[in-house]
Parts: sequence; structure tokens; C-alpha cells
Amino acid sequence: MQIVEAVRWAPGGDAVRIVDQRRLPAELVERDLRTADEVVDAIRTLAVRGAPAIGVAGAMGLVASALPHAGEGACDFGVRLARHAAAIRAARPTAVNLPWAIDRMMARAAECASSGAAPRATLEALRAEATAILEEDRAMCRRIGEHGLPLVRDGARVLTHCNAGALATAGMGTALAPVYCAAAAGRRVEVYADETRPLLQGSRLTAWELARAGIPVTVLADSMAAALMREGRVDLCLVGADRIAANGDVANKVGTYALAVLARHHGVPFYVAAPASTFDPATPTGEAIEIEQRAPEEVTRGFGPPTAPESPLVRVHNPAFDVTPAALVTAFVTDRGIVRAPFAHSLSGGMRNENRLRAE
Amino acid sequence: MQIVEAVRWAPGGDAVRIVDQRRLPAELVERDLRTADEVVDAIRTLAVRGAPAIGVAGAMGLVASALPHAGEGACDFGVRLARHAAAIRAARPTAVNLPWAIDRMMARAAECASSGAAPRATLEALRAEATAILEEDRAMCRRIGEHGLPLVRDGARVLTHCNAGALATAGMGTALAPVYCAAAAGRRVEVYADETRPLLQGSRLTAWELARAGIPVTVLADSMAAALMREGRVDLCLVGADRIAANGDVANKVGTYALAVLARHHGVPFYVAAPASTFDPATPTGEAIEIEQRAPEEVTRGFGPPTAPESPLVRVHNPAFDVTPAALVTAFVTDRGIVRAPFAHSLSGGMRNENRLRAE
Repeated sequence: MQIVEAVRWAPGGDAVRIVDQRRLPAELVERDLRTADEVVDAIRTLAVRGAPAIGVAGAMGLVASALPHAGEGACDFGVRLARHAAAIRAARPTAVNLPWAIDRMMARAAECASSGAAPRATLEALRAEATAILEEDRAMCRRIGEHGLPLVRDGARVLTHCNAGALATAGMGTALAPVYCAAAAGRRVEVYADETRPLLQGSRLTAWELARAGIPVTVLADSMAAALMREGRVDLCLVGADRIAANGDVANKVGTYALAVLARHHGVPFYVAAPASTFDPATPTGEAIEIEQRAPEEVTRGFGPPTAPESPLVRVHNPAFDVTPAALVTAFVTDRGIVRAPFAHSLSGGMRNENRLRAE
Repeated sequence: MQIVEAVRWAPGGDAVRIVDQRRLPAELVERDLRTADEVVDAIRTLAVRGAPAIGVAGAMGLVASALPHAGEGACDFGVRLARHAAAIRAARPTAVNLPWAIDRMMARAAECASSGAAPRATLEALRAEATAILEEDRAMCRRIGEHGLPLVRDGARVLTHCNAGALATAGMGTALAPVYCAAAAGRRVEVYADETRPLLQGSRLTAWELARAGIPVTVLADSMAAALMREGRVDLCLVGADRIAANGDVANKVGTYALAVLARHHGVPFYVAAPASTFDPATPTGEAIEIEQRAPEEVTRGFGPPTAPESPLVRVHNPAFDVTPAALVTAFVTDRGIVRAPFAHSLSGGMRNENRLRAE
């Protein structure tokens, strides 16, 4: 099974090689990022996207951007590294993974500096750290896939929204990981992919990576999922998450909440797949999550010519995310197992009492 | 208030003048249809659309197409008229209004023929019949608006789907008629328009005609309506209907059913506005309504370049309509008043016991 690798080291080890997601589904173009500017640009323009993938690409990109400066003095090198790190860290504001990865890299750099390491030695330590972040992300995806495997039975028809697949991570994705694992285990599995307006990550990206892996996928407009459920053609919903509050409320791509309500109405199980790091103990409930409003043009000019009239009387509502209350989530598929809200333990601490408590 | 006239007689009376809806929202282009081929083409390519508008345009177009042949013998003229009628009647299969209007015209023509009328006299009778169909459609819209007026209070925020406005009828529309009436009565009213994938009738048409009439409108992707309801920003939903079964199940533009489920979940009233002629006593329930599957390209190439990968593993689900069970409809706003399912009388007969029985 051919699962796309969205982020990896270029063969020479001097660049991050990413799949340029702006070119999908038309063509598979890979780009090698070597400078901090290139990394920032790739993140900002969504050439690389998905919270886990951005974190990994940022950490690896920091290493690549510092490589040509290995011959500088330790002090100059340290200043330059900090400047690159700050630029990459600020490339996109919402994803928690990017600042987390960069902070982890800079903590490692600080250790090296305090032990008097030369730039070359620091760079080797940073390369090892970035590779560790990459490998941890891959392992995280695999574990989500393994824990979610029992949910995707032979013949299962899975409905998903947006792209929480391999293209959004360095590994096999979050929401799509159980699907890939089920297919690898020889189960027949079929995916319904909401196209996901306004940016069409479902039809452009999810459909592309599933077809590439040999998994049949049916694209539908977001508004068509309800009738599909009513006809009994959906066995389960599997979506990703951008942030999960301490009480289990889920912020994810706008449209997720509608799906959750529809799934509940039709008795279809609704699962959220995400690494434990997505649970944010500092956010008590979904109420505390600020929802980013994006440019009106994403809705009205997403495809070239304007699809809505230009008039002072015509406004556009374009929130990037919505919040699904924990009570509508059947269970969370995490790298530590399947858990249900309300959570017995702090999720950032450990999720030992899995399955003990259910959402009402 | 400037409400667009989607279908009317051209000033000389020798053509049907329509607003070419394929050119909206970019520009307002009117076209005069003079031949049966032009009428068929306009209906088929959705230059004129909306079940009521198609019926009116078909009837008027039949007159225009026959005018140049007034000098022919009665027998030749009759054959030609029947040929034009058959072509126009078959232009689009789904809408019930088009065959209904053409059959009514041909019944009038048959009366003329049996009384030995000359082609010129027949044409005058047919022009009067088509004008009556036009005026009846306008009056139907106005009555729906008046009956629905109490539902649209001052400050009301109305969510609608697709276009069931002036552009879909010869008058002020069905779902939008109560909105226009409320604005005309001096009430502040604001509309949320689902963009309505795949063909974007909401953002292209509903937003255009409301802004033209001076009514503020906010366009949103279909998947965003749920969060809007959760935030308490929708006072009522108002949608149109393509067909209503005898038990009150509603076939309408795909996405309507999702809205109805979401409205019920959030306690938002959900109204369906349609003329009594949309109630089809021959269709016992929604189960009996066949749902048209449309071309995959509407979803994957609606805007030029493909937005989904081309692969034998990638299919597209593109139903044009869905069915909303009567139990999710708060009430029907018709030209005969506000009614609720289950209906005490046959709706095609008369709806005298309005409001007496409620949907469970």
C-alpha cells in the first residue's frame, strides 16, 4: 500500500522534502525547502499543512536553514538560529504543534550551547532532535491506526471531513490511520469524503491520498452527508481535531459540528482521532476556543471568477473551525488508546482509565 | 424595492424576455426567446430555472415560437404548434410545472381548434392563457409572501438554502416572498444564504436578488449553518420545495434535509414555502420520490480545473435533491395559508382546516 509521505528528509539531508499540496490533485510535485524563508512561505501558503505536518516540517526546516552556517562562530550561529526559529515559529498562528516543535528544538540548542558545543555538533544534535520529532509523529499515527482498527470492520463505510490523513502528518494521518490499517489488514473499506468547503481539502487531498493507496473513495458535497446517513450508507464517522478542550469539546474544520449532530440523529457512531497532544488542559471547554474568521474570498472567489455578488449589502461568513460538544463524540481514538469524555485523568498526564467513563 | 423580474413579455410581445441566470452574479443580461429551440436551450442550460419560472417561460415561449406561423393554414399551424409544445415540454424532466403549463396551453389550443378558430385567433387565445399563467404565478408568490409575513418579525434573521426567490418564479419567489413582504412592510430583516453546492444558487442568485432589493444578506458555505444555529444567530429557516408528498415529506435541493435536522436539534423553526400545486397527491410519501443523480463534473469541475483526482477509485455522489420527512417541517407556507402535516384534506382539493393538525 502506497501511503504518501508528506514530509521527509531530502536524500542529501540538506533540505526538508515536502509534497506541495497546492498542486494536488492535479499533480504530485515535491519541493525541497532549504532556507527559513522557504519554510515560512511553504507553511503560510499551505504548500505544507495539517498541524502535525507543520510542526515536523518546521523543526526539520530549522536544521536545513542553519546548515550553511555551520562554519560561523558559536555566538553568530546562535543568534542566526534564534532568528530563523522565531520566523518559522510565527509562520502560522493557530496550530499548536509548530511552536511546540520549534520550542523543543531551541531547548535542545540551549543545552548544546550551555555545554559549549560547536555549531557543527549543535547541528548534529538538532538534526537528531528533528528526526526524533519526525519519527514520533509517524509512530503516533501508527498507534492511532492500531487503536482505531477494531472500529473499521470488514466492509466498513467511513465518512470523513477535511483531510486528517497522511498529507496532514509525517505518517499515515490521524482520522485516516485506522482506515489505512484496516486496508493493510485485508479488510474491504470504503470512504466517503466530504469535499469540505471552502478549501476542498476533502476532494483535493483526502480523495487523492486514498486513491493513491488503492482505497475506494466517493466525494460528495458537504450538504449531501445527511441523506447518505439517512439511507443507511454510513457505518461510522471519523474526523480529526485541531484542538480538544479539557472537557472533550472538539475544535476542528468547520462542518465537523454539523456532521456530529447528523450522526447523532441517525445513530451513526462519531469518532474523533487525534494524538493525546491535541488535548489542551489549559482550555476548559469549547467556549474558550477562539474561532478564526478567514478571508471572504475563500468562499466567493475560491475558483477564479466571483461566485457571489460584490455589494456592500453582501457579507460573507467564513469561520475556519467549529466546536463539537463532547457529548456528541462517541469516543476519541488517540495514540494512547480509545477514550471517552468525561475523562478520568488529565489527558496530558495519562489516560489510563480508558473506556471507563462514557459521554452521556 | 427592486425585485427582479425573471420572466416577462418583451415590449413588442413577440418574445419571452428572461434574465440569463448563467451570467449572474457577474452581470445582469436579459435574453429574448423567440423560437422553440431557444426556449428549450434556455431551460436546458439553466439560463431560466426554478420550477415555476420554467413553466411560465415554457407557456409564453410556445406563443412566441408560433407567432411567425400565424399565416399558415389551420391544419399546418396545429401540427407545428404540437411539435413546438412537445419539444418544450421535454426540455427538463423533473419539474412538474413545465408539462403542466404546456398541457394547459394545448388544452386551450384544442378548444380553439374544435370551435374552428383561425390560427390568428388561436394565437390570441394562447397569449391570453400564457399571460394568465404568468399573472397567476405572480399572485401565487404574493399570497405566499402575505401568509408568511407574520413569521418574519422585525429584526428576523432568516436562513435559506438554494434559490427559491424571484429568480425561480415569475413573481417575488416562494421562500423569499415573506422576506420581501417583511422588508416592504418596513421590518428589518437579514438573510443567511447557504451557498448551496454544487451549483451555488445561494451565493450566485439568492445573494444577488436580495442585495438588488436592498436586503442585507450573508453568504456562508453549507457546512457553516450548524455553528450559526448553535450560536443563536438564526431565528427561522425558510426554504422552497420541488415536490411535496401527500404525507408532507418534502423533496428539495440537496442539503435541505441536513438543515431540517440541524434546525430541529437547535429548536429553530423550519418552514417550507411552496404553492399548493407543489403538493402531489399521487406521491404518498417521500420514499416514492425518485432522486435525480447529476453529472460528477458538477462537483469536481464546477469551477474549471478539477478539484478531485481523476482515478477509477474516485467516485462522485451528486444527488440533486434530498427528502425531508414531514415531521421535521414546522409548517408549510402556501398560497392558501399556513398548513401543517398531517393534512386534514387533500391538498390539491382545498386546505380549509389549516393549522388544525400539527406535525408530531
